[in-house]
Amino acid sequence: MNLSGLRVAVLAPITWPTPPPGYGPWEQVAFNIADGMRRRGADVTLFATGNSAFEGKLESVVPCGIGEDPHLNGEVFSALHVGRLFERAADFDLIHNNLDWKPMTYALGTKAPPLLTTIHGFSSPQILAAYYACAWRSFFCSISDADRDPGLSYLATTYNGIDPSGFSFKEKPGEYLVFLGRFHPEKGAHLAIEIAKRTGKQLKMAAIPQDERYFHDEIEPHIDGEQIQFLGEVQREARNELLSNALALVHMNTRPERFGLTLVEAMACGTPVLGSRLGSVPEIVVDGATGFLCDNVEQAVQKVSQLASLDRKACRARVEEQFTVERMVDRYSDAYAAALEQKLPPAPAPEQLRWREHDWWDRPMAFTDIPPKPKTQPLLPLKSS
Amino acid sequence: MNLSGLRVAVLAPITWPTPPPGYGPWEQVAFNIADGMRRRGADVTLFATGNSAFEGKLESVVPCGIGEDPHLNGEVFSALHVGRLFERAADFDLIHNNLDWKPMTYALGTKAPPLLTTIHGFSSPQILAAYYACAWRSFFCSISDADRDPGLSYLATTYNGIDPSGFSFKEKPGEYLVFLGRFHPEKGAHLAIEIAKRTGKQLKMAAIPQDERYFHDEIEPHIDGEQIQFLGEVQREARNELLSNALALVHMNTRPERFGLTLVEAMACGTPVLGSRLGSVPEIVVDGATGFLCDNVEQAVQKVSQLASLDRKACRARVEEQFTVERMVDRYSDAYAAALEQKLPPAPAPEQLRWREHDWWDRPMAFTDIPPKPKTQPLLPLKSS
Repeated sequence: MNLSGLRVAVLAPITWPTPPPGYGPWEQVAFNIADGMRRRGADVTLFATGNSAFEGKLESVVPCGIGEDPHLNGEVFSALHVGRLFERAADFDLIHNNLDWKPMTYALGTKAPPLLTTIHGFSSPQILAAYYACAWRSFFCSISDADRDPGLSYLATTYNGIDPSGFSFKEKPGEYLVFLGRFHPEKGAHLAIEIAKRTGKQLKMAAIPQDERYFHDEIEPHIDGEQIQFLGEVQREARNELLSNALALVHMNTRPERFGLTLVEAMACGTPVLGSRLGSVPEIVVDGATGFLCDNVEQAVQKVSQLASLDRKACRARVEEQFTVERMVDRYSDAYAAALEQKLPPAPAPEQLRWREHDWWDRPMAFTDIPPKPKTQPLLPLKSS
Repeated sequence: MNLSGLRVAVLAPITWPTPPPGYGPWEQVAFNIADGMRRRGADVTLFATGNSAFEGKLESVVPCGIGEDPHLNGEVFSALHVGRLFERAADFDLIHNNLDWKPMTYALGTKAPPLLTTIHGFSSPQILAAYYACAWRSFFCSISDADRDPGLSYLATTYNGIDPSGFSFKEKPGEYLVFLGRFHPEKGAHLAIEIAKRTGKQLKMAAIPQDERYFHDEIEPHIDGEQIQFLGEVQREARNELLSNALALVHMNTRPERFGLTLVEAMACGTPVLGSRLGSVPEIVVDGATGFLCDNVEQAVQKVSQLASLDRKACRARVEEQFTVERMVDRYSDAYAAALEQKLPPAPAPEQLRWREHDWWDRPMAFTDIPPKPKTQPLLPLKSS
């Protein structure tokens, strides 16, 4: 759609500045959206910390990230940050919420303008109560087709995008396998080690030990500095080099991936992915073209010898076609158009209402955390209009 | 004012049911207000837990108190609880918020109906940012003249009220002094002990050791089971008896009291108060009639011999005139009338705006907690219209 003059409010988190100087994935995505819309002519107001760097309009209630000054009261400033946006709601044609579920509860008292929420992930079953209660007021985008809740309607899947120019394409395959991310059983570093050992390949692991016991018990004993190498956390340049020169990225996750930015970064370097057929991985990786999808370690082991024969140009092309910031902005632009046309989301289908009555504690894979189940169940949110 | 048919939403906390079966002071006040307004003909909707007991309309998103089922996600249900109220804002002529500052941030996006917030206390300097940012949208009531912030305008002081029929009046003074509440230096139990020892009076202390180190170091060594007695926490009946038969309640608090329900309860039994001339105490106790106001322990010691000569009927009468639930409802009724007439609060005076720029970290006595001071100061909230 023609975004020219469209008054868009983009709500970013305030843990870090937008864009973040270091860690801060949601702040980064919010920046990419706000800046992309601005470049296409939208009149964007970014709600973020005061030390954020944005060429459009910036509105702030807090001078820096609450993660940067631990004595700032995050509860107070988060509430004021969101409250401020809705105080100014009449100034906008559309509000794009990148701050999880809570801003939707503020929107319940306001009927305009259309609100679009990107669901970056479901932390626990209990936040579904908030999504269900607010579904009449907010449109939703998912970050993959896989990471959708069947009780909700979605306008679009809006994959996160990267700037491919930040990644060096190498046409010639390297010799080693690489594992990137964090050491947690669900990320499958232990499976990457097994694959490397059974195929005689070198494995370079650059990751933070999030789950220290797992790292100590399952990973560390295998590190020999030769075949199985641990590089610690690597920064931008080293990471780029590590990915470019690899034979493949091994990503044998055991819990469904919500999106998987690392896979996209590897492919931008021309490096294919040896990954689990789980969650969003099949949406990112074209099986047999930009990597291989595997149901288990056995299958992965069998595919290793075929990795070098994959066309690394296809990997890069896949990213340039589907996973750039520009493609992400295209998708959001279409979602904005749909939201502006519909104004309010459709009523839920009977099937969706049935899903909303479901006991979500039986689906641990869908949530980041499964806290103990409450004795009592919520009342109205599940039935709210 | 004539409350008949006035559509009032009363927002209670959801930590406990309203009214609470045990602890839950804010829930109790919210119930007293909602029920009092209902009895006077208002069309009251109480927003509280589903297991609350209210003869008017009850609206709930959570089946029980989040303090009753620790696995309920308090953040989710608190947000939905408040969001639900504002979703229904158009159904009411007035919203009465008894849930601290956060609901005001929801109201920023809505201009109607009038909102009245009872400030039950300032927890830390940082929540002033929320009060200042939301002052254009919410009227305020304080629970004593003393517990006011000079940066804010108030509609009224609305003292909390009790039902005097729950307290047994005794005309004849007892022999012992009593200390009630919690062991924390600011409540002055150590000063009560000093007064008892210097005057040879017996002291009965019924309180919970909130500050255990203080209790261990400053209180416990003096407990002999004879002159200085420690009774632990006492429940309703024992508490009533303890107060009724006392010579006086000793309340030598060292931090300004916000209100002081215990003082009112003692006076309802006919028992005068030997208290600090600090915070709200001078508003509750009539010096020389229903007790004595003291600037220090020396003064208090001198007054002990005069306690028995005070007219205990005057103590009871003071409560019946000023500190009953009905008087509280009268005061709120007047505040509602003023809010309905003004619709939105007045713009802040220049003097108030100057106070809002004040560095509140130099006034620790005004706040329940003084967290470390942030390196950075908030931006817009302090200047918000």
